[in-house]
Amino acid sequence: MHSILSQIVVNVNGNVTNGRDATISVFDRSYLYGDSLYEVARTYKGKLYKLPEHIQRLRKSAELCHMIIAQDDDVLMTEMQKTLEAFQKSNSAEAYVRIILSRGIGKIGFGLQSLLTPTLFTIIVQPIEELTAEKFKKGFNLSIVSRWRNPPQALDPAMKSGNYLNSLLAYLEAQHEGAEDALMCDYQGFVTEGTTFNVFYVKNGILATPPLNVGILAGITRIQVIETARRMGFEVREVLFPKERLFEADEIFVSSTLREVFPVTVLNGKKVNNGKPGPITQKLSEAFHDKK
Amino acid sequence: MHSILSQIVVNVNGNVTNGRDATISVFDRSYLYGDSLYEVARTYKGKLYKLPEHIQRLRKSAELCHMIIAQDDDVLMTEMQKTLEAFQKSNSAEAYVRIILSRGIGKIGFGLQSLLTPTLFTIIVQPIEELTAEKFKKGFNLSIVSRWRNPPQALDPAMKSGNYLNSLLAYLEAQHEGAEDALMCDYQGFVTEGTTFNVFYVKNGILATPPLNVGILAGITRIQVIETARRMGFEVREVLFPKERLFEADEIFVSSTLREVFPVTVLNGKKVNNGKPGPITQKLSEAFHDKK
Repeated sequence: MHSILSQIVVNVNGNVTNGRDATISVFDRSYLYGDSLYEVARTYKGKLYKLPEHIQRLRKSAELCHMIIAQDDDVLMTEMQKTLEAFQKSNSAEAYVRIILSRGIGKIGFGLQSLLTPTLFTIIVQPIEELTAEKFKKGFNLSIVSRWRNPPQALDPAMKSGNYLNSLLAYLEAQHEGAEDALMCDYQGFVTEGTTFNVFYVKNGILATPPLNVGILAGITRIQVIETARRMGFEVREVLFPKERLFEADEIFVSSTLREVFPVTVLNGKKVNNGKPGPITQKLSEAFHDKK
Repeated sequence: MHSILSQIVVNVNGNVTNGRDATISVFDRSYLYGDSLYEVARTYKGKLYKLPEHIQRLRKSAELCHMIIAQDDDVLMTEMQKTLEAFQKSNSAEAYVRIILSRGIGKIGFGLQSLLTPTLFTIIVQPIEELTAEKFKKGFNLSIVSRWRNPPQALDPAMKSGNYLNSLLAYLEAQHEGAEDALMCDYQGFVTEGTTFNVFYVKNGILATPPLNVGILAGITRIQVIETARRMGFEVREVLFPKERLFEADEIFVSSTLREVFPVTVLNGKKVNNGKPGPITQKLSEAFHDKK
């Protein structure tokens, strides 16, 4: 049953093992409360890409949930590198590298005095699912779902935490509608982001994407796309917009570490740009690959 | 470090062990995503109290997050009883019994096709912290915090899930303000509930509590209080109200499995009923103890 997990390399607080054997305490607060943070980095040509940016964002997440990270940045980066190298001994694929940082093991109860350990980490390294030219051409079939994105005043989406049910339930709703994944609006009806990616649209040659203060993750690829597009001479607006704007768009694409710059070709069952990646999406994708 | 955990009895998928040795896979979806449900029951005179009601609510939570529970009610109740009996072999205290039901172990990813197991359970049994007459007299020091309760359209508080950061962060905010715990309002400013309890107030002999559709847990003690109060001849209104109503209240109390009927004597630093449990709160508490 778990043989698939044994091919995954996992580092639990410094001990590198295979996925089948990697366990944590039932008193880990990530298990009890989702009281954890995470980041996902990836490799290009075997090297971790933008790792300091990911670690910096982990620190930002920690601030938002008042978590004091016991480990220095260097320790976390070294452990990620160590786990990656263990993976690379038996696998030549590009790697997906997830770090999960739990507030620690503790007695049941919210109080920080319940904690019996400092923050604990798990690093999971597995082969990445590569994006092929074929997948790019087919694009992403998304649905804007009825479920609201968590409002930042309740649980800030800028915090990449182990509380993922909001996105998971949005995903299941999209799947139920026949789409591959979901986009969510906030409680006021403004478009926010997808379950694991930011979103952009193009109209009359101008790019638009929701601003950070609508309550979204500050995507590392998102900012890279904004900067790249501006350098290429495109106007990029960070602006609130309702879902109707997406249905009128010339092109839609998503951005994330794993999806890079990826076209949306179907939205709520309707074709976008006749079901093909748009020209500006293609240019930005090419520019992204040149830069990386 | 973990010797305190070794006194706790834990059942992981049928295997009873002590808390120090109880582990789960890092691919358990409760660890990765908080993708789990839970219930907390307790004993009175060594017997599990209202267990069928708790299991029924677990089923309701499962519906809300589209989780298919692999285990029959009988299996879950038998395993809880078995774990309780293991605890009672070495401990005569009343027991706190928590069941956590995870969607299972799976590959990283939201899709249910990523799952490698059916739902998995962990049962944790530990001594309950008894409420003494002294604690009752002192009452609860609460703060209505600025953090919003999760809106049901984003993540329904009626679902008792492993995504507990919203409540945890409210708790930390209250602690920062010098209170013991937090009450939260919804995004429209209506009072909802506490981090782990429902709330009632009394004004001119009439009881009020937020209605279920504001987005709260359907507390088992909450409904018991409503029914008991009505039988005693009190009017009980399930009604939306802003936090100002609480500051004008004659009495405030909370209800939960662990807190039973418990007076709030300080709210945001201001005394409630001169800092003493109110007379109606006391009557309801006595009636609760007669019934149980």
